[in-house]
Amino acid sequence: MDERFGLDRRVTLPGEFPLAGGGVLPELTIAYETYGKLNANRTNAILVCHALTGDQYLASAHPVTGKAGWWTRLVGPGKPVDPDQWFVICANVLGGCMGSTGPSSIDPRSGQPFAMNFPVITIADMVEAQARLLDHLGVGTLAAVIGGSMGGMQALTWAVNHPTRVKKVVAIATAARHSAQNIAFHEVGRQAIMADPMWAGGAYAADKPPAAGLAVARMAAHITYLSEEGLTEKFGRRLQDRDAVSFGFDADFQVESYLRHQGLSFVERFDANSYLYITRAMDYFDLAQPHDGNLARAFAGVQSRFCLVSFTSDWLYPTAESRRIVRALNAAGAPVSFVELESPFGHDAFLLDAPEMNRVVNGFLTA
Amino acid sequence: MDERFGLDRRVTLPGEFPLAGGGVLPELTIAYETYGKLNANRTNAILVCHALTGDQYLASAHPVTGKAGWWTRLVGPGKPVDPDQWFVICANVLGGCMGSTGPSSIDPRSGQPFAMNFPVITIADMVEAQARLLDHLGVGTLAAVIGGSMGGMQALTWAVNHPTRVKKVVAIATAARHSAQNIAFHEVGRQAIMADPMWAGGAYAADKPPAAGLAVARMAAHITYLSEEGLTEKFGRRLQDRDAVSFGFDADFQVESYLRHQGLSFVERFDANSYLYITRAMDYFDLAQPHDGNLARAFAGVQSRFCLVSFTSDWLYPTAESRRIVRALNAAGAPVSFVELESPFGHDAFLLDAPEMNRVVNGFLTA
Repeated sequence: MDERFGLDRRVTLPGEFPLAGGGVLPELTIAYETYGKLNANRTNAILVCHALTGDQYLASAHPVTGKAGWWTRLVGPGKPVDPDQWFVICANVLGGCMGSTGPSSIDPRSGQPFAMNFPVITIADMVEAQARLLDHLGVGTLAAVIGGSMGGMQALTWAVNHPTRVKKVVAIATAARHSAQNIAFHEVGRQAIMADPMWAGGAYAADKPPAAGLAVARMAAHITYLSEEGLTEKFGRRLQDRDAVSFGFDADFQVESYLRHQGLSFVERFDANSYLYITRAMDYFDLAQPHDGNLARAFAGVQSRFCLVSFTSDWLYPTAESRRIVRALNAAGAPVSFVELESPFGHDAFLLDAPEMNRVVNGFLTA
Repeated sequence: MDERFGLDRRVTLPGEFPLAGGGVLPELTIAYETYGKLNANRTNAILVCHALTGDQYLASAHPVTGKAGWWTRLVGPGKPVDPDQWFVICANVLGGCMGSTGPSSIDPRSGQPFAMNFPVITIADMVEAQARLLDHLGVGTLAAVIGGSMGGMQALTWAVNHPTRVKKVVAIATAARHSAQNIAFHEVGRQAIMADPMWAGGAYAADKPPAAGLAVARMAAHITYLSEEGLTEKFGRRLQDRDAVSFGFDADFQVESYLRHQGLSFVERFDANSYLYITRAMDYFDLAQPHDGNLARAFAGVQSRFCLVSFTSDWLYPTAESRRIVRALNAAGAPVSFVELESPFGHDAFLLDAPEMNRVVNGFLTA
């Protein structure tokens, strides 16, 4: 029994961890899970990267909410990423709040939480932390790296920054850069958190978080995860447990009640400072930036095969962003397949039942 | 010189003012402006209705910001709504904060501001308040009522609730109901305000408003007024007064700086409780609701001619909502013209230079 493998693992890796922004972390802890067995040739490892508010509980129950893993529709027995066949790794991102080093971690130099002394991180830093974890696990080359949304950003970055370590990349509902509108929505969320006096410049106690501000941030973000069409289908103007509007400020409409619930339940499981740092990392993400905006040049050295998936009603990372990546990969001569899937569920579609997506991913992994 | 006419007028109308939600206001004050002269036959009156955060300063400088009137591109000498020809009226809506009765007004029964004791109001209530103002001004029939966004909701309501008093209706960038997504964005704004401890259940002093919460509400709303395309064109990922990102939480990106400015400047001129009440009135707006969702039945008795305008990149009140109104008016046998105008500027397009819109409005008013 190798203690490195299994559920609810955590490792502190020796040595300093330098960051893209110039900062240095004195040490690096990564919380992660693995599913399945690494084969003798070490050729069956798949890294799954999570999105902004995701975590390492990819395919096992979440310790706070008790809910099933966040991507059990894709990962699990009989699914495209079947632990019977694959050795699956999922790690809480650098900057996260589920055990990996982040703003709520204790800075060993001060004995206090980093809070806003945590250095600003990037998507590339998250990938470097994962690379160190792979070294620790004895995984040289990944059969595939898979991610949706911010997970897709990490997957693309893997192919660019570690071209020899990634055979296949699956990037779903994602983009190679954050748009002005994406940045704007994140900035609203950050301002909502920072406007909450409980935030206290980031130095809040763990049991006294800026819950109201974080809930507002989540509510604003949540709207962007759904489509107008999906919201109309799901809620329309239907009232919540009443026959007529109350002429007041209660949650008369189902959509209000739903949003409030989303905000309140989020603060139970997420750290406000982590939200600040991870949204910032996403805003800074622009693969083409070091190449004067030329995305094809960013992909010049890649050695992976790529599979991109977008959803028709995703207005957060619309199909146009996936097409831009596909064009750049084509220009760079990299093999890429792309499919836009019909869905009324907006950005969140990749986390829902998506049989077509599963077929595409399965076909790509087994091809 | 008739004191009723001119800039910066204010009148308190006698008698109670009953509301659609069942409440009653003990008195009704309306702050308004008029431009031009009512002709002898009283046939040249045009009422212009303002949007959520607008006011009566339609075509004269705003007393707080000093900026030109909010619709001088449409109203003024040589414009489609020329005070040389038309007698133009614009009133601060019921529930507003620029002089008309609203939550910041003093309740004569208590001597204190209404605050959250103000009754919840509707778009129809706003229209009734305007009707009382017209009575006061001696205006029987309107040559036209014109409005964009929430102003368009009032214009449509005028035609339905006062069919004999409105010859023509111009409804721009608007809808006959608030969608689930519209309600969701408003709910985020309200939660942001109510999460601010300075809000104090609405009982804040005028000089100690919940500025942080209101600024966040404005920022979230402002994103919905612009298009992704417009934001990309205007800001993209360009940095604010710097050559490289700061790896911090300053406003590195121009779009962040712009949004923060929008939030901060808004709180100088708007009242948080008014924002709560007016967004609520918009959420409640659904012309078809009293007719089992049949919008054509809502329009059954209208006697006006209609002109509808939408903009291609407006995702807050998209063209589909205007088409829905057009279909219902057609079914009701009401004369209607409709045009969708190309614009990259999103919902805000109706307030910007829009020569095509001006041509359409001019043609409709003079036909």
